[in-house]
Order: sequence, then structure tokens, then C-alpha cells
Amino acid sequence: MSSHVYKMLELTGSSPTGIEDAVNKAIAKASETVRNLQWFEVVETRGHIQDGKVAHWQVTVKAGFTLE
Amino acid sequence: MSSHVYKMLELTGSSPTGIEDAVNKAIAKASETVRNLQWFEVVETRGHIQDGKVAHWQVTVKAGFTLE
Amino acid sequence: MSSHVYKMLELTGSSPTGIEDAVNKAIAKASETVRNLQWFEVVETRGHIQDGKVAHWQVTVKAGFTLE
Amino acid sequence: MSSHVYKMLELTGSSPTGIEDAVNKAIAKASETVRNLQWFEVVETRGHIQDGKVAHWQVTVKAGFTLE
Amino acid sequence: MSSHVYKMLELTGSSPTGIEDAVNKAIAKASETVRNLQWFEVVETRGHIQDGKVAHWQVTVKAGFTLE
Amino acid sequence: MSSHVYKMLELTGSSPTGIEDAVNKAIAKASETVRNLQWFEVVETRGHIQDGKVAHWQVTVKAGFTLE
Amino acid sequence: MSSHVYKMLELTGSSPTGIEDAVNKAIAKASETVRNLQWFEVVETRGHIQDGKVAHWQVTVKAGFTLE
Amino acid sequence: MSSHVYKMLELTGSSPTGIEDAVNKAIAKASETVRNLQWFEVVETRGHIQDGKVAHWQVTVKAGFTLE
Amino acid sequence: MSSHVYKMLELTGSSPTGIEDAVNKAIAKASETVRNLQWFEVVETRGHIQDGKVAHWQVTVKAGFTLE
Amino acid sequence: MSSHVYKMLELTGSSPTGIEDAVNKAIAKASETVRNLQWFEVVETRGHIQDGKVAHWQVTVKAGFTLE
Amino acid sequence: MSSHVYKMLELTGSSPTGIEDAVNKAIAKASETVRNLQWFEVVETRGHIQDGKVAHWQVTVKAGFTLE
Amino acid sequence: MSSHVYKMLELTGSSPTGIEDAVNKAIAKASETVRNLQWFEVVETRGHIQDGKVAHWQVTVKAGFTLE
Repeated sequence: MSSHVYKMLELTGSSPTGIEDAVNKAIAKASETVRNLQWFEVVETRGHIQDGKVAHWQVTVKAGFTLE
Repeated sequence: MSSHVYKMLELTGSSPTGIEDAVNKAIAKASETVRNLQWFEVVETRGHIQDGKVAHWQVTVKAGFTLE
Repeated sequence: MSSHVYKMLELTGSSPTGIEDAVNKAIAKASETVRNLQWFEVVETRGHIQDGKVAHWQVTVKAGFTLE
Repeated sequence: MSSHVYKMLELTGSSPTGIEDAVNKAIAKASETVRNLQWFEVVETRGHIQDGKVAHWQVTVKAGFTLE
Repeated sequence: MSSHVYKMLELTGSSPTGIEDAVNKAIAKASETVRNLQWFEVVETRGHIQDGKVAHWQVTVKAGFTLE
Repeated sequence: MSSHVYKMLELTGSSPTGIEDAVNKAIAKASETVRNLQWFEVVETRGHIQDGKVAHWQVTVKAGFTLE
Repeated sequence: MSSHVYKMLELTGSSPTGIEDAVNKAIAKASETVRNLQWFEVVETRGHIQDGKVAHWQVTVKAGFTLE
Repeated sequence: MSSHVYKMLELTGSSPTGIEDAVNKAIAKASETVRNLQWFEVVETRGHIQDGKVAHWQVTVKAGFTLE
Repeated sequence: MSSHVYKMLELTGSSPTGIEDAVNKAIAKASETVRNLQWFEVVETRGHIQDGKVAHWQVTVKAGFTLE
Repeated sequence: MSSHVYKMLELTGSSPTGIEDAVNKAIAKASETVRNLQWFEVVETRGHIQDGKVAHWQVTVKAGFTLE
Repeated sequence: MSSHVYKMLELTGSSPTGIEDAVNKAIAKASETVRNLQWFEVVETRGHIQDGKVAHWQVTVKAGFTLE
Repeated sequence: MSSHVYKMLELTGSSPTGIEDAVNKAIAKASETVRNLQWFEVVETRGHIQDGKVAHWQVTVKAGFTLE
């Protein structure tokens, strides 16, 4: 990790299942166009409610990738 | 979401299973008396430990509902 | 909880599975040497990405135990 | 302000016009059922975008009233 | 603390004497109408000054009670 | 809002008029190249002073758009 | 902005009209005795409520000026 | 509180007795040269330890006074 | 304080009396095994409620001692 | 700085030497593709340790540039 | 540090060289008019960029001095 | 970094020279008794002033090591 420079993206993924799935969806989508995503940090966990149940989890992450 | 006013509740749900289940329990309980819960935000994730294992997850959320 | 004094540890557990498993691994490891762990609070959720997927969840908790 | 006890509500008002109008709408709505609202603090300013313009401002306030 | 759901109130008590008294006044007042208050957390300590002395302490707490 | 992934931009707009105008300028400029901006959150409000008056308001927002 | 040293003041202005006016009042007042005020940052937006309406906006800013 | 402008001071008082006494000492000292101190907010509570006991409480407050 | 290295502990003391007593209990207990505790900072003030009164104050401090 | 709109990037630079060098490496790398970088703010300072010494400083900055 | 009262100043120093030099410039300037500056805390590290390099570091500190 | 558990220490190092040297002194001292220190994060930068100059930098870090 010595001499690289990294750039951070902030992404929000959503999932009807849970937090881990929402994070994976955000990272999978960003990986279509950004190579070298290397780590992430969860910065916010929110969601929508319908009929007294969580309908979607919405999780915001910062993800870092190597600037080449 | 244009012309409504929303009120936020702060709730803590607990679950032996995990974070998502604790949130759903808090929202299900509040929905017994509050209609129109529409979204939530996780503000704290804590828990109790027994015999070196997580015994209960305790997750605090802010949840918003429409003031009618 | 009346007259005790507690000490907090800050620990990071990691897991390929998810947040709950990472927390449990941190607490199980600490329990090998510290008795009386009683509660925890999640303070940071991060992770590593490989090939566009979360490879490991890394969850940092503060955990409190009774000073005897 | 000496010997009273106050309770805080957290409210979100929205307005197509701006921040002040969104706050006033939240307070006017809450005043229909809560007497003695006395002060507020802005805790979050968000909004929705349509066609490259702010469509609605959504401002969240904490408002305090006297418990009688 | 296993399977309950809790709701938090945010309250401000005031006292000419000090912080502990202001907290107790807030909790005593809220207990007139809310059963089952179980814990609190101090979130803000302010006060008024008259003639170069603290005239009133104003302490804001979040207090949690069991939703039945 | 179910199955989308969003990306956040952080932008600063400035205006001699006020906060709302500075936000609108930031969003209008970003909309020239980014489609689907959907919401924003104000993260900082600053400004420059000349001759004892606010010369420019500088408002920083995070704005989210759909990743297609 | 190279070799100067700046000092920050923290000021609260109030206005029945809105946030921008409250900031301008604070800066105009401070400019009577402090030359060279150069920038500000909003740190808190509060207000008083009367009869279900905002009676006064109270906005706290940090303002910086050149130490000569 | 309508049309005034306030200036905030940040002060640290210390006391061998406790938090309230440390705040009062800070405010009494500042009142020797600043008229019209009107309110305060506690921003930090620290202290020194000697021989396993608190030797001095050091409490930092922001205090506001009217700019005339 | 020149060339030393300090280590911080995080401790929670509890007391039926008040904040100062809870801090002193935490520091007294830690001093049984750690020499050279030199300063502390209050990081959280919570408590338990029974019958509409504060039953125990629980105050969390960070305390620093010299690494020898 | 009147009528421009700025966009912020979040970057992490690393250096075996120190904080300033890590910031300069991040900014130099970003300047290869982004013109008009104008200011930055340090948001996090971390690093890696090897053999009881800092092996690399990793400093994260937000940097703003003019949107043309 | 027992019975004194301290007042905090907030200052920003700038330097083309680095963080330590910017802090020293702020403290040297303030010492021309304020005696008894005793400690400081870094609260913000920013800077200006020219031609892809840091042109000036701007470091904001809170500095405390004894009120006599 | 897959299946390990880490423990964080919080340390304050001091140096008359600067921030990097204060961090290195804290880490060198802790490495005398703790093996496997792997990373750190700066959490606070303070210092003492004498005769209008920084006499000592005091930098607090969290440092993580592998629990074996």
C-alpha cells in the first residue's frame, strides 16, 4: 500500500434482504466501470418501511480504488 | 414527498439473531400504534454478551411517519 | 449494575460472511483471556473488496467487562 | 425558563420555496396538536431534485415545548 | 432486556442547584405520564447566567421506556 | 427506490443572494453533465465578507444520482 | 492568503426574517469594532417560536479576520 | 432576544470540588471584564488525577454575551 | 510532560449519588492496578431509572497514565 | 470565488516520510487528470506500522476544483 | 493548573512549508498581544493548491491562556 | 487480514520536533511490550506553548495489533 494514491467514491446500494446485500450491490455496480476497488467503509444505514416492515435497506459506503 | 410534515420517533429493538431482525422488531412494534411509518435510519448498534457470545443485538433507529 | 466499575476494550473482528459474524469472532477471541465481557457497541464497519465483491467484513466494537 | 421541563419533538417540513418556509410548515403543523412550542434547532437540510432544480426543500428540526 | 422494544424521549430539565437535580426534575416530570422509564443519557448541558453566576442549569437527556 | 445504486457527488455553489440560490447553482451546473440527480443534503454553509457584509454565500451539498 | 494569521470570532445574530438576515446582522455588528472580517461559517441555526410561528431566527457563525 | 447580536467566549474553569463549581469559577472570572454574560454550554469535562483521586475538575464552557 | 508516552484507558464508574462520585469510583478502582493515572476526560454520562428517579449514574471516562 | 461551482474529490496519498509528503503525492496524482484543483482539507491521518516504526503515512484529503 | 481560569482563542496560521510551521506562526502572532498562552489543539488542517502542489498550509488551532 | 482479531490501544506521544516524531515515539514505546502493532490513526493533535512557541507536540493515536 506504499506508494499508491487512492480515490474514494460514495455509493448507496439498496436491497430488500439486508445490510450486507445492499453493500454488495453497490460495490458490484461500481465495479462495472471502476477497476481496483479495494476497501469500503459504511457511512449510513437507512431504509424504507411499507406496511410496518422494512421494504428496502439503503446502505451508503465510501469505497476506495487505486488511481493508476 | 412534497407538502407533508413528518415526525420522527426514536426506537430500540432487540433480537438474538442480528441487526436486521432487531430493526424489524422495533418497526413492527411501533406500527401497532403509529400509522404511516415511512423510513428509518440506524443511529446506534449495541448488544449484550453472555458466555463470550452476543446474546442480544440492540439497534436504535429513528423512524419517520406522516403527520396527518 | 450498581456499584461495579467497567473497563472498555476496542476490538476489530473480521469475517467473510457478514457483520454479525465479525462481531462474534472479535468477542469470542477476547473472551479467551477476559472474563465478564458484558456489552458492546459497534463503532465502525469497514471491509476489503476483491474482484468486485466484499471479501471480508471488518467490524470494530467497544466491549465492556467488569473490573474485579 | 427556570423550573419547567421541556420535551423535544423531531419534525421534518418540506417546501418548494426554501429553508425558512419548510421550517415554518413543520412548526405550524405540529402546533395544531402541541401547545407551547417554544424553540427549535435545525438538524438537517436536504431536498429533492427534478430536472436539475431543487423541487422540494426538506428541513428537519428539533422543537421544544413545555410539559405541563 | 431481550425481546422488548424501547422508545426514547428527549427532555430538558432545569434547576438552580446543579446537573443531577436538573436531570431528576426532567425524569420525575416525564414519569407522571410515562411508565417504565428505564435509562437515560445526557446529551447537552447548558444554562442561564445572571449577575455573573449560573442562575439555572438546563440539562437535556434522552430517556428510554418499554413499549408495551 | 428499490433496486438502484446511487452515487454521491460533493459540490459547492456560490451566490451573492443566499443559501437556496447557491444550492440551485451547484445543482444546475452539475446537471449539465450528470443526468438523474435525485436528492441532496447540505453539508456546509460558509461565505465571504466584504465591507462588513456577506459578499458571497458558499454552500456545499452532497447530491445523489442513479448509476445506470 | 499566504502569510497572514487569522482570528476567529463566534457570533449569534437574530432576525425575524430568516437565516441570511440573521447572519448579516451578526457580521454588521461585529464590523463596527473589528476590521478585516473576511469569511464566516454557519455553525448553528436555532430560533424562537410564538403562536405556532418562527418569531426569530438565531444563527451562530464563526467569522475570521486578519490579525495585523 | 429579538434584535441583539451575541458574542461567544470559550472558557475553562477548574475546581477541586466538582463540575458546577468549575463552571461558576469560569463565569465569575469572565464577569469581571465582560458585562451581560447570558448563557453557557458545557463543551468538555476533563480533570487531573493525583494519588488515585480527582484532584481538579476542568470544565470548558462557551458563554454568550450581548454585543452593545 | 515532555518526553513521556501515555496510554489511555476507558472506564465506566457508577454511583447512586452523582457524576463526580461515579468518576471517582472508576478512577479509584483502576488505581488499584495502574500506577500513574494522570488525567481523565468524561466521554459519556448515562444512568438507570427506577420508580421515576435516577437509581445510578454511569459515567464513562478516558484516563491517561504514563507508560514506564 | 464569486460565481463558480466547485466539485470535491476525496483522495488518499501515502508516504514513508510524513503527512505533508502524503498530501502532496495525492494532489500531484490527481492533477494529472483534473485541472484547477484549488484547495484541500485533511479528513483523516492513518498509517502502517512495521517493526515498531511508522512504515507509511496515509493521509486522506478532500480537494476542490472548478467545474468549467 | 488548580485554581486558574483559561480563555481559548481560535487562530489560523498559514505556511508554505508545513503544518508545524503554520501552527508556530499562529502562536507567535497571537503572543505579540496575549501573554500566557499555554496550550493548543489543532482543529482543522486545510490548504491552497497551485499548479498541482500545496501552495500554503492553513492550520486552525484553539489556544488557551490564563485569565489574570 | 482475513481471519484475525485486532485490539486497539490509545496512546499519546510527545515531541519537541513535530507531529510525525510524536507518533513515532508513542509507537516505539508501545512496541517494547506489544508485538504485532500494525496500523494507527491520529485522533488528536495538541501541544504545550512556552514563550510564544510550541514547546511540545502531543499526538494521540489509536494503534491496532493482532490478538494471538
